[in-house]
Amino acid sequence: MVRILVINGPNLDILGKRESEIYGNVTMDEINNELKKAAALKGNEIEFFQSNHEGDIVEKITSTETDGIIINPAAYTHTSVAIRDALSSREVPVVEVHLSNIYAREEFRHKSLIAPVVTGQVSGLGKRGYFLALDALMELADEK
Amino acid sequence: MVRILVINGPNLDILGKRESEIYGNVTMDEINNELKKAAALKGNEIEFFQSNHEGDIVEKITSTETDGIIINPAAYTHTSVAIRDALSSREVPVVEVHLSNIYAREEFRHKSLIAPVVTGQVSGLGKRGYFLALDALMELADEK
Amino acid sequence: MVRILVINGPNLDILGKRESEIYGNVTMDEINNELKKAAALKGNEIEFFQSNHEGDIVEKITSTETDGIIINPAAYTHTSVAIRDALSSREVPVVEVHLSNIYAREEFRHKSLIAPVVTGQVSGLGKRGYFLALDALMELADEK
Amino acid sequence: MVRILVINGPNLDILGKRESEIYGNVTMDEINNELKKAAALKGNEIEFFQSNHEGDIVEKITSTETDGIIINPAAYTHTSVAIRDALSSREVPVVEVHLSNIYAREEFRHKSLIAPVVTGQVSGLGKRGYFLALDALMELADEK
Amino acid sequence: MVRILVINGPNLDILGKRESEIYGNVTMDEINNELKKAAALKGNEIEFFQSNHEGDIVEKITSTETDGIIINPAAYTHTSVAIRDALSSREVPVVEVHLSNIYAREEFRHKSLIAPVVTGQVSGLGKRGYFLALDALMELADEK
Amino acid sequence: MVRILVINGPNLDILGKRESEIYGNVTMDEINNELKKAAALKGNEIEFFQSNHEGDIVEKITSTETDGIIINPAAYTHTSVAIRDALSSREVPVVEVHLSNIYAREEFRHKSLIAPVVTGQVSGLGKRGYFLALDALMELADEK
Amino acid sequence: MVRILVINGPNLDILGKRESEIYGNVTMDEINNELKKAAALKGNEIEFFQSNHEGDIVEKITSTETDGIIINPAAYTHTSVAIRDALSSREVPVVEVHLSNIYAREEFRHKSLIAPVVTGQVSGLGKRGYFLALDALMELADEK
Amino acid sequence: MVRILVINGPNLDILGKRESEIYGNVTMDEINNELKKAAALKGNEIEFFQSNHEGDIVEKITSTETDGIIINPAAYTHTSVAIRDALSSREVPVVEVHLSNIYAREEFRHKSLIAPVVTGQVSGLGKRGYFLALDALMELADEK
Amino acid sequence: MVRILVINGPNLDILGKRESEIYGNVTMDEINNELKKAAALKGNEIEFFQSNHEGDIVEKITSTETDGIIINPAAYTHTSVAIRDALSSREVPVVEVHLSNIYAREEFRHKSLIAPVVTGQVSGLGKRGYFLALDALMELADEK
Amino acid sequence: MVRILVINGPNLDILGKRESEIYGNVTMDEINNELKKAAALKGNEIEFFQSNHEGDIVEKITSTETDGIIINPAAYTHTSVAIRDALSSREVPVVEVHLSNIYAREEFRHKSLIAPVVTGQVSGLGKRGYFLALDALMELADEK
Amino acid sequence: MVRILVINGPNLDILGKRESEIYGNVTMDEINNELKKAAALKGNEIEFFQSNHEGDIVEKITSTETDGIIINPAAYTHTSVAIRDALSSREVPVVEVHLSNIYAREEFRHKSLIAPVVTGQVSGLGKRGYFLALDALMELADEK
Amino acid sequence: MVRILVINGPNLDILGKRESEIYGNVTMDEINNELKKAAALKGNEIEFFQSNHEGDIVEKITSTETDGIIINPAAYTHTSVAIRDALSSREVPVVEVHLSNIYAREEFRHKSLIAPVVTGQVSGLGKRGYFLALDALMELADEK
Repeated sequence: MVRILVINGPNLDILGKRESEIYGNVTMDEINNELKKAAALKGNEIEFFQSNHEGDIVEKITSTETDGIIINPAAYTHTSVAIRDALSSREVPVVEVHLSNIYAREEFRHKSLIAPVVTGQVSGLGKRGYFLALDALMELADEK
Repeated sequence: MVRILVINGPNLDILGKRESEIYGNVTMDEINNELKKAAALKGNEIEFFQSNHEGDIVEKITSTETDGIIINPAAYTHTSVAIRDALSSREVPVVEVHLSNIYAREEFRHKSLIAPVVTGQVSGLGKRGYFLALDALMELADEK
Repeated sequence: MVRILVINGPNLDILGKRESEIYGNVTMDEINNELKKAAALKGNEIEFFQSNHEGDIVEKITSTETDGIIINPAAYTHTSVAIRDALSSREVPVVEVHLSNIYAREEFRHKSLIAPVVTGQVSGLGKRGYFLALDALMELADEK
Repeated sequence: MVRILVINGPNLDILGKRESEIYGNVTMDEINNELKKAAALKGNEIEFFQSNHEGDIVEKITSTETDGIIINPAAYTHTSVAIRDALSSREVPVVEVHLSNIYAREEFRHKSLIAPVVTGQVSGLGKRGYFLALDALMELADEK
Repeated sequence: MVRILVINGPNLDILGKRESEIYGNVTMDEINNELKKAAALKGNEIEFFQSNHEGDIVEKITSTETDGIIINPAAYTHTSVAIRDALSSREVPVVEVHLSNIYAREEFRHKSLIAPVVTGQVSGLGKRGYFLALDALMELADEK
Repeated sequence: MVRILVINGPNLDILGKRESEIYGNVTMDEINNELKKAAALKGNEIEFFQSNHEGDIVEKITSTETDGIIINPAAYTHTSVAIRDALSSREVPVVEVHLSNIYAREEFRHKSLIAPVVTGQVSGLGKRGYFLALDALMELADEK
Repeated sequence: MVRILVINGPNLDILGKRESEIYGNVTMDEINNELKKAAALKGNEIEFFQSNHEGDIVEKITSTETDGIIINPAAYTHTSVAIRDALSSREVPVVEVHLSNIYAREEFRHKSLIAPVVTGQVSGLGKRGYFLALDALMELADEK
Repeated sequence: MVRILVINGPNLDILGKRESEIYGNVTMDEINNELKKAAALKGNEIEFFQSNHEGDIVEKITSTETDGIIINPAAYTHTSVAIRDALSSREVPVVEVHLSNIYAREEFRHKSLIAPVVTGQVSGLGKRGYFLALDALMELADEK
Repeated sequence: MVRILVINGPNLDILGKRESEIYGNVTMDEINNELKKAAALKGNEIEFFQSNHEGDIVEKITSTETDGIIINPAAYTHTSVAIRDALSSREVPVVEVHLSNIYAREEFRHKSLIAPVVTGQVSGLGKRGYFLALDALMELADEK
Repeated sequence: MVRILVINGPNLDILGKRESEIYGNVTMDEINNELKKAAALKGNEIEFFQSNHEGDIVEKITSTETDGIIINPAAYTHTSVAIRDALSSREVPVVEVHLSNIYAREEFRHKSLIAPVVTGQVSGLGKRGYFLALDALMELADEK
Repeated sequence: MVRILVINGPNLDILGKRESEIYGNVTMDEINNELKKAAALKGNEIEFFQSNHEGDIVEKITSTETDGIIINPAAYTHTSVAIRDALSSREVPVVEVHLSNIYAREEFRHKSLIAPVVTGQVSGLGKRGYFLALDALMELADEK
Repeated sequence: MVRILVINGPNLDILGKRESEIYGNVTMDEINNELKKAAALKGNEIEFFQSNHEGDIVEKITSTETDGIIINPAAYTHTSVAIRDALSSREVPVVEVHLSNIYAREEFRHKSLIAPVVTGQVSGLGKRGYFLALDALMELADEK
C-alpha cells in the first residue's frame, strides 16, 4: 500500500467558486473525491491538505509520513524558499502540479522556486495534472 | 448602503507605538475610529482587519462579502503573489494605500506586486490616504 | 486662502476628444471647472496650466507662487529629469496624479522619475484623483 | 479514432546508447513500441518522428494531419523560435515532454521557448512523461 | 484624394548642410519637393512639418487632419513617450522612417519607443525610405 | 539587367494556409508571382527560395550570383548567427522584410540578429514590404 | 541582568532530525539548552522562539521586551520584507546567524534582505554561531 | 579672436535663487559677467544662452557660428539624444560642465548621454568649472 | 594509430573565397591537406567534415568512431545547444578552434555554448589553431 | 598548541588614526595586542600581517604554516580573485571578518568574492569580530 | 603656502614613449616640470608620485601631508576599492584627472569607482587637465 | 633569434605544491625548463617571470624587450585593467594561456579582461598550452 499526500496552496480553496470562466466549475473537493477513488482502486491511501499559510504547508511537509507528495504550491511557487527547503529535506518523490500553463502567463510566474528540488512537474493540463501525478507516484513506489 | 473592508498588513498593529519620529503617534485604532465615523456619516458600513499573516489576509479577502476593499499590504506589497491572486479573484474595486511614499524609499520598495491588479493606488499622503480611498470607493459604489 | 497650481502634461489637451472608449468623454476643461468650484467652496484659489512642452512645464513650476502643486506629468513621468529637478527646487507639497493605473500598463510606465521627489501619488482613480489631491493639499496647507 | 504525432528532437536517436548511467538503457524504439501499444489499446493511431534537424521538425509539424502532438524538443527547446512558430500555427493540443527535470539543470535550460505556446508540459518523470502526455491528449480528444 | 502628413524630428533641418560625408548633400527641402511631386502625381496632398521641439511635434500629430503620417522622429525615437502617446491617439496608419540603419549604430539607438505603436517601419534605405512610406500609405488609403 | 534573390525563412511556406485570420489568405506563391511581374516590368530577373532549414538558407546566400537580396528570415531573425555571417560575406545590398511589425509583438522578437548587417529593413507593412524592398534594390542597382 | 531573545525560522524545528548527514545530529533543543546555561552563567536570561510562520515571527519581534535579539531567519532571510520591517522598528542590537555559509550555496541565498538592518551577521560557523552572537550581545549590553 | 558659446540647460535660470544651501547664492548672471571679463581679457568674445527647452538648445547649437562650446546640459545630460546629435554635428571643441559631482548623486545621474561626443568634461568643481572650460577652449583655439 | 575527426561549421566552406582581406586566401581544403600530412607523419588518421546544417553536425558527432574531435563550430558556437549536447555524449577529448579571436569581436560572440563541455579551446591564432589542436589531441591519445 | 594567522588588508594600518568618528580610536596594534593575550591564555600562538598589497597578501597566505586564518580583506573583499584563489589552495579553516556591516553600506560592498571559499564570516560587530573568529578557530582546531 | 600631491597610476610611466599616435610625445616628466613651475609661480609646493602598484598608491595617499590631491588613477579607476577607501579617509580636496575622455572609450571605462568620493573630475582635456586641477586646488586652498 | 617572455600571475608559484589532485604534481620550474629546451632547440631565447603583484607584471610587460609574450594572468585575468592596458601598449604578439578550461568553471571566470587585446588564447589543455603558445609565437616571428 502506497500513501500519497496532496498539498494545495493559497486560493485553491475557492477553486470553482470564483473566476469560473477561467478555472471552470469543478471544486477542489470534487477533484479530491475523484483522486481518492483512483488511489483506492489500486489499494492505495491518499491524504489531502489545503492551506493559505506558508508555515502550515512547511509543517505539513516535514511532519507527515508518506510515500510521495503531489503539490500545487499556487502563488507560493514563485516566492517560497521555506517550502522549497521543506521539500528538500524529504527523500520521497514529489510532483509539482499547476492547473494552468504557468509559462504562458505573466513573466514572474515563469520562474518556479520549487521546480529545482522536485522529481517532476506537470503544468497546463488542468485537473488532469493531479491524476497524471498520482499515476507517476504510484508507479515510482512500485518500482521501489 | 455600501460595505467597505479595510485590510492592514504586517507591523501596522504597532503603528504609533514605535518609530513615532517617522510615523507619528497616531495608532491604527484611532485611524479606524475616524474612518468608521466618515463611513457612518454617509450611512455606510466599514470592517477592519489587521494581520501579520499572509495566509490570514488571503482568506479574509476571499471570504468577506463587501462592496470595496482598502488594502495597505505593507511589507507584503513587495513579496506576496498570494495576496495578489486573492485580490484578482474579487470583482469589487480595490484601493491600495501606503502611508509613506514607497517610491522615495529603498529600491526594493519601488515595485508593488499588488498594484497591477487593483483599481488605484494612493501613496505618501499619510493617514489621509485611507480617507481618500474611502471617498473613492463610496463614489465608485454610488456610480454603480 | 490657499493657492493651488494644477499642471497637466502632454496630450492631456485632447482628453475626452480622442480614445474616448478608454478615457471617457470628460474633457480637461470640464474637470478644471469642477476643481475650480471645489476649491472656491473652501475659499481657495486654483490655477490651471497645460502644456505639451517639457520646458514650459519646468518654467511654470519654478516661476509660479503657489501653496501646493497637483501635477499629472503624463508621458513626461517616465522621461523628464528636468521636471523632477524643477519640483525638487520647490518647498511646497506636490501630489502626482495619473488618470489610469500606470502599474497595470506597459513595463516602461511602471517607473516614475517624478515620484521620488513628490509628497504623494494617486493613480488609477480617474478624474477623481485630482479631487483627492486637491483635498490632500488643502488639508496640508491648513495644517501649516 | 484519435491520431497522435510524437516528435523527438536532436540526440534522442542515441537515447539508451550513450550516457546510459544518466538516461538508462531504454531506447527510443522501445519507448515508441510501448506507446504504440498503449494507443492501440484504445483504438487510436500514433506516428513517430525523430530528427536532429530543426527544419525537418518544423515541416513535420506543419504538414502532418493529426489530433494532438507530443513533442520532446530536446536542445531545440531553448533555441528554436521556428518550432515555436510552427506549433503556434496548429490548432490541435500539444504536450511538451522532457525526460529530465530541466529546471534542475544548467541555467540556460530553465527557459523553454516552446512552453508558452503549448497546452501543457511534463518534465522530470522519465519515459513515463510520454505516457502521461498520451493519456492527456486522448482525453482531450474525447472531450471534443 | 489622400492627405499625408510628413513629420521630421530634431536636427533634420540641417540635413545636407553638416556631416555631408555621412548623410550626403541632399537637403530636407529637396526631399520634400520630390515627395510633393510624387504625391501630386496621384492627385494626393502632402504637408511637411519639421521641429526640434518634442511638444510641437506632439501638437502637430494630435491637431492635424490627415489620412496617414510619415514620421522620422530622429533622436526622439529613443526618448519620447509623449510622441508615442500622441501617435497612439490617432487612428490613421503611420510609417516610421529612418535614413540610417539604426540597428547598425550605438546600442541605445536599437530601441525605438515609437515602433510598437506604428503600422510599419522603414530604416537604412536613405531618402528612399520616405518614398516607400508614401507609396505604402497611399495604397493603404486606397484599400479603405 | 538586375538579378534579385528573394529568400523566405521557416513557416513562410504555409503563409495564407494557416492562421489566415492573422496573416490573410494570400500565399507566398501569389506574392512571388506579383513580384516576378514587377521585376520583369523593368527588365529585371528575380529568383525565389524558401526553406525551413537554416543551413540551406546559409548555402543559398553564399552560393548564388545576384545583385541584391530580399530576405524575410522569419523565426531565424532572432536566433541565426549563421545567416548573419553568410549575409556579411556578401557585398550586395540586402533588405530585411517582416510582414508583421516585430516591434509590437513578444519581447524576444524585438531583437534582430540580422538587422546590423543589412542595408535596410522594412517591417509591419504586410506583403507590400516585399515590393518596397524590390523597388529599393532596383534603384540601388541603378545608382551603381 | 540582560534579556536575550533567540528566534529561529522555518524548518529549524527539524534540525538534527532530517538531513543529518548535512546538518549533524544536534537538535535545536540541545543547542537551546547549552545557550541557556551560557547565558545563566553570567546571570542573564534567554527566551527561545521557533516558528515556520512569517507572521508569528513578526509579532514575536515587535511584542517582546528584550535587550538583544539573535535571529536565524532561515528561508525567510531571502524573502521577508515583513521581518526586516519588524526588526527595523526595534532599537536593541540584533545579530543574524546562519548555520551554513550562505555565500557558498545557491545564488538566490547570497542576498539577505535582513542583513542591512541588523547590527552584525555570523554565518558558516555551525551552532558555534549562536554562542558567538550571544557573547557579542552580552558585551554590547555591558557597554551600555 | 576666439568666439565661445556658453549654453546652460533647464533650471539653471534659477541658480542662486532657490536651494541656495546647496548651490550657493551666486546667480548665473554673475557667473556670466565674470566669464565675459575673463574672455575679454584675452581679446575673445563670448555669448550666453540659457533655455529650459530641449529644442531651443538643439537649434542654438546647430545655428550659431562659434569656435568652441561650453555646455552645462543639466537635466538633459541624462535624457537628450537630440542635444547629443546636435553636438555631434559640430566640429568645434566642446566642454561639458557640471556644477556638482554628478557621480556622487543618484544612480541615474551617473550616465551622461552627452559625454561620449564632447572633447572633455569637468564636474564637481562648482562655478570654477566654467572658467576651467573657458581656459581649455581658448588654448585649444590657439593651438589651431 | 589515432583517429581524429575535424568538424567545421557554417560558412567555413567559403573560407578564402570571400572576405579574404579578413580571413586571408587560404581555403579549407588547403588547411585540410596540411592537417592530413601532419597527422599522417605520426601514422595517424584524420577525417574532415564541413556542414552548414546544425543537424548534420549533431549526427556526425554522435555517429563517428574517433579518438578525438577538433571542432570549429563557427556561428553555431553561440547558438547551438544541440551540438553541445552531442559533444557531451562523447567521451573522447574535444578541442574547440576559432580562427579569429572571438573575444575581440561583437559582444554576442564572447559567449560560447560549446566551451563548457570541451577539453580545451584555441582562439585567435588563425589556421595555426587547427595544428595546435591536432598536436594536443595526438598527445592526449598517447597519454592514454 | 594552535597557530593562528591574522591578515588585515588595505587601509587597516590607519585604523583609529583617521575617520575615528566612524571607526573609533582603537588602533590595529591595540587590537592585535589583545588578540595575542587571548590566544596566549589558551597556550596558542598568533601571527599578525597587514599589507596594502594584494600580491603580498597572496604570498603570505600560501607561504605561512598555520592552523587557521582570520582575514579582514577590506577593499580586496570585493575585487580580489587572487586572494580567493590563495585561500582556496589552503585546507585550514578561514574566518572572514569585517568591522562594519558591509551589507548596510554601498551596493558594491554587498558582494564578497572571498565568502564562497571561507568557513565562515563575521561582519558588523566591530573589533569584537576578531575575538569571535579567534574563539571559533581555536574550537575548530580542538575538534580536530 | 599650499602643498599639492600629484599621483599617477599604472602605465603612466611610459606616457609619451609608447602609443604616441594616441597619447602624443609629451612624457610625464615634462608635464611634471611644467606643473612644478605653475605651482612655484604662486609660491606653492608640489610632489609627484607614480606607481604601478595599487598598494603603493594606497600608502602614499594615507601617509602624505598635503593640502590637496590630483590623481590620475588610470586603470585602477575602474577596479580599485582600496584607492577609493584611502581617498575617503582624507579630508583634503581631491581632483580626478583623465587624459582621454573615458566616456568615449570601452563600456567598462565609463564607470569610475573613484569619482563618487572626490571633489571633482576633469577628463578628456589631455595634459591640460592637470593644470586645471592644480588651479582648482590652489583656489580651494585659498578659500579656506 | 626570437626572444619570448613568459609571464605567470598570482598563485602559479605554488603550482604542483598544493591542490595537486586538481593541478597535478608538475611545478612551474619544471614547465619552464621544458619550455627553455623547446625554445633553445630552434635557437630562440626565453625569459620567465612570475609574480603575485599586479604592478610588477605591468612593469615587466612595459619594460622588457621581447618578440612575443606568453601570459597566464591567473586570477588577474578577470580583474586587471592595468595588465590589459600594459599589453595594449606593446606591438608584439601575445598569447594568453590558461591551464584549466576557464569556461567550465565559476561564472565570474568566464569573462577575461585580457582576451580582447591579445592575439590568441589557449585554455584547458594543461601545461601543453604553453608549448602550443610558444610554437605559435615562434611561427609568427618567422612570418615577419
